[in-house]
Amino acid sequence: MANPLVSDRNVEFLLYELARAEDLTALPYFSEHSRETFDLVLASARKLAREQLFPAFKPMDDEPPRLENGQVRIHPAMRELWPRMFEMGLGTATRPAEVGGQQLPRTVAVLAAHYCMAANGAAMGYLGLTTGAAHLIEAFGDEFLKREFMTRMYAGEWAGTMALTEPDAGSSLADVRTRARPQADGTFRIDGNKVFISGGDQDLTANIVHLTLARIEGAPAGIKGVSLFAIPKKRPDGSDNDCACAGVFHKMGWRGLPSIALNFGERGECRGWLVGEPNLGISYMFQLMNDARLMVGLNAASTASAAYFEALEYARTRPQGRSLNARDPASPQVPIMQHADVRRMLLKQKAIVEGALALLVTCARYADLAKHGDDRHRAQLLLDVLTPVAKSFPAERGFEANALSVQVHGGYGYTSEYLPEAWLRDQKLNTIHEGTTGIQSLDLLGRKVVAEGGAALVALNEEIESAIERATAARVEPGWIDAVRRAAAVVRDVTMLLASKGLSGDRDGMMLHSFDYLDLFGTVVIAWQWLLQAAAAKEGRDDRFYRGKLAAAQYWINAELPRVDYLAKLIADGEDSYAADWF
Amino acid sequence: MANPLVSDRNVEFLLYELARAEDLTALPYFSEHSRETFDLVLASARKLAREQLFPAFKPMDDEPPRLENGQVRIHPAMRELWPRMFEMGLGTATRPAEVGGQQLPRTVAVLAAHYCMAANGAAMGYLGLTTGAAHLIEAFGDEFLKREFMTRMYAGEWAGTMALTEPDAGSSLADVRTRARPQADGTFRIDGNKVFISGGDQDLTANIVHLTLARIEGAPAGIKGVSLFAIPKKRPDGSDNDCACAGVFHKMGWRGLPSIALNFGERGECRGWLVGEPNLGISYMFQLMNDARLMVGLNAASTASAAYFEALEYARTRPQGRSLNARDPASPQVPIMQHADVRRMLLKQKAIVEGALALLVTCARYADLAKHGDDRHRAQLLLDVLTPVAKSFPAERGFEANALSVQVHGGYGYTSEYLPEAWLRDQKLNTIHEGTTGIQSLDLLGRKVVAEGGAALVALNEEIESAIERATAARVEPGWIDAVRRAAAVVRDVTMLLASKGLSGDRDGMMLHSFDYLDLFGTVVIAWQWLLQAAAAKEGRDDRFYRGKLAAAQYWINAELPRVDYLAKLIADGEDSYAADWF
Repeated sequence: MANPLVSDRNVEFLLYELARAEDLTALPYFSEHSRETFDLVLASARKLAREQLFPAFKPMDDEPPRLENGQVRIHPAMRELWPRMFEMGLGTATRPAEVGGQQLPRTVAVLAAHYCMAANGAAMGYLGLTTGAAHLIEAFGDEFLKREFMTRMYAGEWAGTMALTEPDAGSSLADVRTRARPQADGTFRIDGNKVFISGGDQDLTANIVHLTLARIEGAPAGIKGVSLFAIPKKRPDGSDNDCACAGVFHKMGWRGLPSIALNFGERGECRGWLVGEPNLGISYMFQLMNDARLMVGLNAASTASAAYFEALEYARTRPQGRSLNARDPASPQVPIMQHADVRRMLLKQKAIVEGALALLVTCARYADLAKHGDDRHRAQLLLDVLTPVAKSFPAERGFEANALSVQVHGGYGYTSEYLPEAWLRDQKLNTIHEGTTGIQSLDLLGRKVVAEGGAALVALNEEIESAIERATAARVEPGWIDAVRRAAAVVRDVTMLLASKGLSGDRDGMMLHSFDYLDLFGTVVIAWQWLLQAAAAKEGRDDRFYRGKLAAAQYWINAELPRVDYLAKLIADGEDSYAADWF
Repeated sequence: MANPLVSDRNVEFLLYELARAEDLTALPYFSEHSRETFDLVLASARKLAREQLFPAFKPMDDEPPRLENGQVRIHPAMRELWPRMFEMGLGTATRPAEVGGQQLPRTVAVLAAHYCMAANGAAMGYLGLTTGAAHLIEAFGDEFLKREFMTRMYAGEWAGTMALTEPDAGSSLADVRTRARPQADGTFRIDGNKVFISGGDQDLTANIVHLTLARIEGAPAGIKGVSLFAIPKKRPDGSDNDCACAGVFHKMGWRGLPSIALNFGERGECRGWLVGEPNLGISYMFQLMNDARLMVGLNAASTASAAYFEALEYARTRPQGRSLNARDPASPQVPIMQHADVRRMLLKQKAIVEGALALLVTCARYADLAKHGDDRHRAQLLLDVLTPVAKSFPAERGFEANALSVQVHGGYGYTSEYLPEAWLRDQKLNTIHEGTTGIQSLDLLGRKVVAEGGAALVALNEEIESAIERATAARVEPGWIDAVRRAAAVVRDVTMLLASKGLSGDRDGMMLHSFDYLDLFGTVVIAWQWLLQAAAAKEGRDDRFYRGKLAAAQYWINAELPRVDYLAKLIADGEDSYAADWF
């Protein structure tokens, strides 16, 4: 049986039973939509994913892009896929009608993208970067940029990139050095070097617009002197804009999408167009980065999903060994699914994949409500506090899940004849790009949970309380409900302890265990999502699918959530072995 | 600074301060040795490793073996390395003088091999397979096989392999199907297909001897009907022996060492020589497999060591960001080593690498004592019970350590211009080959801890108690000592609980959490090794090296060992989510 990549039943479950997406159509922005239009979008996404994107995944991994005479050549399969993705409307699905969009809820769009990312993350990378860059221009650019650049990008005629990182400025964007000098015609002369620019060059589209962070001459030091520019590979008049590819990085994974070093202005001929106001580049870029972080989380959940279904099918069909009690060596071997440790590995993958996906759908719903709902501020607070978790949980635990998919396949899993090793290689990037896990943990603890006096945590606790009510009404196992309630209290206590450390001036002490705090926080957030799924499962009729949901919920709450006490103690004790000065 | 791959100071520490290797020279078998001869071996190993093996690592990863007209072509660098490894005596270091060996303690040899594996695991793979196969013939073969095969293999003229796995018999060796028919001349006609045969073909040596599991016609079903054969690629008379390479597996890592599919007897012309008695093949093979498992653990610790030192150097020299309190954006960036989360990642790597290595040295010492010591039975019990941990702990946690090395390198770590991604790819195999982690956990819980009424666990507790005495005398932090003592008691309690489940007939219940049991057991075993290292560090004068040991001991005991309670509860509760029938 071909790998489904994603469970259709689970998508339906998350959308309609968990997130109750139909409720969104009551909001004016989504009023043209209905369950029927949602289902049409999902049906075409899964068709595109399974029939076109997935067959190109392995060929694109096998033959990565190469640089020829200064031009990056990508896999020819992309030329087939690119127009299909835009015809399907993936580029503008959530955008307003006035820019050619379909005003689809992100709650639905995230699941359409999930199919496509599970099928071919690299192919979706080109699209996500293009639409993300176009969205930046939509939000902050002037009419010229919208007309000349955005429209063509949303249509897939041109592509886009995010050009942030420099050789000495990766995690630290305050140290961006690329320079911009005002020209008489209102443009800027750009001069600088960028690295790790995904999709930074290709032979797929007629032009590429690099949304670039640079410093206008005389701007203040640090992040308050960084501006945002749109820098096209070719100028609007079609002439060359002096953006040179200085090299293609050979990578562990994501081999279908080139990551390049880009030199702006080697000949002094590179022009950039300022987006928005000078010196506000970082704040603009954060719109894209916050979206990009959710997309990284989604890619991670999707990569883990594809690998999980591959392992599930393998475990069902691969005979090896016998049960512990069957001692007759002449008896036939059993499918490895029957071995307890294989089932453990599969259930853990399921719990990670479906827990992460539920969180991403939940975040998408908050994003919809933050733009179009009634209590936008509250929804935005929830989205903000959950974003570091929605980015890093699928990346960190998804990497474990992907490693388990290799492990279930045994020796075959280590060979390139099977796909799990490719997904494992792809997955590793997700803990790094768009802010490493360490950066996410600083963002969560140093910024998000303490913002507005802890308002986000209050809102999150209300959401957890409401999940507990739903679970109680649905007669979910009381022990699970108590465990989640207790764990949420642990998060509150630990947060208060750390916040008071910070308030007393011990910022280093507050942040020492930021990674463990993120782990603790994420484990509880996913337990909340599993409690919700258990409630929805109990509300349905008893069948195999719901029993699977209950098994995974049980696993997460009984076998993962208890880590909370151990992590909380570690954080509260302020264990300081790595503060020692022996390094 | 070039990557040292291994800390010389740590090697000296483990050998002389922890394992007290000089004491071994009091045993007759090692009486020709002294600290001077030990140091000479280590000096030449580190020179070979750093000057010859390591420079070939990346080229061998970049250009994997290929099949040309039925012959596997390997990287030409191996032709330089192979004679150097044998000249150094790596092939026969521990073997007795009568077979040309040096009678070196394994306690020392394991550290010499550690340098070489950290430098180039694939290159050492050819050697380890050859000497392991020769050792099997030494132990169980007749004079003909020793003279014709073993001598040439120990000299590096011929190579050797382990040919166990078949397409339908990987973890389940009881299902080996390769057939052997007795011939008039005392040889056997062999007919069958093997897969994943590392070093199964190459253009490096004049001949290759495959130590092969096969079934003599009419033998009983199951493992009691499996015999061991020596099957050379070319017969002793130089004629072809009908061993055909049916394909080279493309692999995620270990790309310097071919893994092939091997067909014996396609033309009915393959001859095998029986090693030892018929139907005892599995018991013979376990000698090699137990050694091979320790070698896998050593490879894992070595791969993690090389990556750890790469990350350490990168963290010392890569400037990025500023401290949490330094808010002046014009101040220079600091080395990432100064960020708490980077230090956490480095210390965790150190604790895993050096904890694993200490265990492997401890196991090597038990192996020496089991062959040449006074209480051989007790030493063998300890070696047996620790082998599954010494194989799987470095593999499982080493994979985490290797992922952290990539993470410390950020975006650069994901590119193939840096080495951490290659080591991460290499590491993944170690949880799979020579018995997956799941298999190791069944071996530990189902066989090793319950053997002889739990005698091994009694011996292990005596060893832990003696470490506690040493730590107490050295004035190690009492809290750490208590934590280790308490954790050892948890292992005893959990083991008794599970054993009594098994005795009451509930074998499935006993084994349900075998993976968690292995994790629990391994975490405590490594804590024991860290307590010993803390004791040895306190016995020395206060310096940076010893402070590093104490920091890592503190980390393991405070930040990892507390997982024991959570794991014990999980096991004791018999959490049964993956017993559910929804799959």
